[in-house]
Amino acid sequence: MSLVVQKYGGTSVADIEKIENVAKRVIKTKEAGNEVVVVLSAMAGETDRLIELAHKVADEPAEREYDALISTGEQVTVSLLSIMLNKMGYKAKSFLGFQIRILTDDAHKKARITHIDSDKIKAELNSGTIVVAAGFQGIDEENNITTLGRGGSDTSAVALAAALKADACDIYTDVDGVYTTDPNICKKARRLDKITYDEMLEMAMLGAKVLQPRSVELAKKFEVPLYVKSSFSEGEGTLLTKEDVEMEKEVICGVTYDRDQAKITVVQVPDRPGIAAQLFTPLAENNIVVDMIIQNASIKGFTDLTFTVSQKELKKAQRIVDRIAGDIGAVKVEVDDDVAKVSIIGVGMVSHSGVAAKMFSTLSKEGINILMISTSEIKISCVVQAKYTELAVSSLHDAFELENKS
Amino acid sequence: MSLVVQKYGGTSVADIEKIENVAKRVIKTKEAGNEVVVVLSAMAGETDRLIELAHKVADEPAEREYDALISTGEQVTVSLLSIMLNKMGYKAKSFLGFQIRILTDDAHKKARITHIDSDKIKAELNSGTIVVAAGFQGIDEENNITTLGRGGSDTSAVALAAALKADACDIYTDVDGVYTTDPNICKKARRLDKITYDEMLEMAMLGAKVLQPRSVELAKKFEVPLYVKSSFSEGEGTLLTKEDVEMEKEVICGVTYDRDQAKITVVQVPDRPGIAAQLFTPLAENNIVVDMIIQNASIKGFTDLTFTVSQKELKKAQRIVDRIAGDIGAVKVEVDDDVAKVSIIGVGMVSHSGVAAKMFSTLSKEGINILMISTSEIKISCVVQAKYTELAVSSLHDAFELENKS
Repeated sequence: MSLVVQKYGGTSVADIEKIENVAKRVIKTKEAGNEVVVVLSAMAGETDRLIELAHKVADEPAEREYDALISTGEQVTVSLLSIMLNKMGYKAKSFLGFQIRILTDDAHKKARITHIDSDKIKAELNSGTIVVAAGFQGIDEENNITTLGRGGSDTSAVALAAALKADACDIYTDVDGVYTTDPNICKKARRLDKITYDEMLEMAMLGAKVLQPRSVELAKKFEVPLYVKSSFSEGEGTLLTKEDVEMEKEVICGVTYDRDQAKITVVQVPDRPGIAAQLFTPLAENNIVVDMIIQNASIKGFTDLTFTVSQKELKKAQRIVDRIAGDIGAVKVEVDDDVAKVSIIGVGMVSHSGVAAKMFSTLSKEGINILMISTSEIKISCVVQAKYTELAVSSLHDAFELENKS
Repeated sequence: MSLVVQKYGGTSVADIEKIENVAKRVIKTKEAGNEVVVVLSAMAGETDRLIELAHKVADEPAEREYDALISTGEQVTVSLLSIMLNKMGYKAKSFLGFQIRILTDDAHKKARITHIDSDKIKAELNSGTIVVAAGFQGIDEENNITTLGRGGSDTSAVALAAALKADACDIYTDVDGVYTTDPNICKKARRLDKITYDEMLEMAMLGAKVLQPRSVELAKKFEVPLYVKSSFSEGEGTLLTKEDVEMEKEVICGVTYDRDQAKITVVQVPDRPGIAAQLFTPLAENNIVVDMIIQNASIKGFTDLTFTVSQKELKKAQRIVDRIAGDIGAVKVEVDDDVAKVSIIGVGMVSHSGVAAKMFSTLSKEGINILMISTSEIKISCVVQAKYTELAVSSLHDAFELENKS
């Protein structure tokens, strides 16, 4: 007998009819001889409705209370699915974070799971019960309700799969797998049968929205066999797995883009030790995530420091940087929020030379100017003017022949 | 410093504006130097919405899941009020059943509170925090979520007041106290300053909807000073208390009515031991609550058995009674659902003769035929034809001079 964790997102449980479809799929898996743990998100739109309610009361709602509020959405869907499964003649029970004991740290709104008690769930599964667990939520050591951040139900599912040593963790969503790029902007996008955890992690970090990055990290750490599937159709989906021999053939697995980028340049900074710390420490203290950082070679004791932040945090970041720029004697601060980041990802690039060169020449051929470059072992990102996003993605998809299975 | 428990019903927290009013009232109480525990219901209409959702999925929803679902309404209001209080500059924290540990038995949908851990709340109060507790919900020993039945938040408030040995428990509702009768059908109805627990219990059982009967039982058991007040106006409200010398002056404190009545008569039952058990045991086994039971004096070895049930349970009851009537050799079963129960309540009637006679003659003078009578030490109930309900209430209110404070 296999143990399968299935996670269904908000669009899959958006109304009673869709919940019935989920129930049928769960029963099918159960009838095939599996033990089944289902993890659910809130109904599509419900979490947003609750967030809006909180913000009607206060601009910055108390975080402990905010989490208690927005975690109700999952409580509703797990109860409804359990009622449905019971009606259909199956033993099913809903479980909330406090009932399983999904322990997290106390970082409200973005808590991290620290421990899951698996005994209770195992006992339920042994007695033939379908376990329906609320995603997105946990409790800290003081029994306060915490939530895991947007897309946190993916992480709940993977964490449960890891704790239970599940044979598979299926993430059901409204697309039927992970694609070489966004099918909405590139018609030639192709569904991948397999992708490594590392590649998926980069893709998720660099703009692909199919999975929460932390769920991929966790899957990698515990080697959870993770499938991304469509809840509206049958199909193999995409398997996330560790690197294997077969996969080494593919140099590049995907192209991503991220339009939520803004570029800040601090011009003519005196090039002396401690300047970077002086700039980036206050940004970190204000919870501003700095993405790419580029420092030019020093000319006559001066350098330009360029970095990117999320557009949502640009104003806040600019206020801080303007203040510090004066303190450290920089000439001026320039801002550009009309940019996008285009990236290519692939574990194969480590062992293949010329990947970066091919990327740069492809963009150049299309007349696309590269504003910033950042690389890691398995990805290359270029910041370009936002208007070139689609063109950059399509031309890179073509250049690396991603429409053809290698 | 006093410890005050305040309970606000669904109409008092129906929207953000009303929640703000509740916050102001809570702050006023806190600023007057009190420790405050607030108990909330769900927003008006929300519990009904959730119940409807459950019944869209299944005619008889699994009870454990039903409770998990409908308990979310209170989670929303306690979070929102806590957000509001924090915004207004006060330390406030929401607490759910599992966080306080409001332990109940495992009778889903109508659970009874068995124990409340008061240590955690006391610690929070000591540190100056306003405690905002979800009404209506608890957990059983297995950590399953339970609910306390309609009006259960009243019971939550009283139970918390008892556990914390509160100096007062204020039940805020949309009326400004307990009335001698329903002001909607009798213009002369008068607000009572005081009423005994026993009288209130009878009034609640006999049709007054202002408090859940179990909350009154609990208040009596632990002698909780319970005030019924309006959340929309200032005013003393009505104090529920144990009997005192001053109160003995009033013979009758109120007149109630209950239209949810149906009368079943089993005609010509052989009068032998065990017949009543044979009839009422299967009704009890089917969870049908039988209210008044009247058995006529036996004539030639036969008797008529008449009893009342809720109209909602009439059909189910009738099916059972029809079957048994044949078994025990009764002649026929008669049913009348066009009846109402009118009652007068007062601790004073024990020591005053003639109360019953006055009630019967009052009804008689108005030409109202009495179909059934049942008495206890502190109440007399008469079943009459439903069309006479208002007339019976008004004439009794007049006859016992309830509009004048004695």
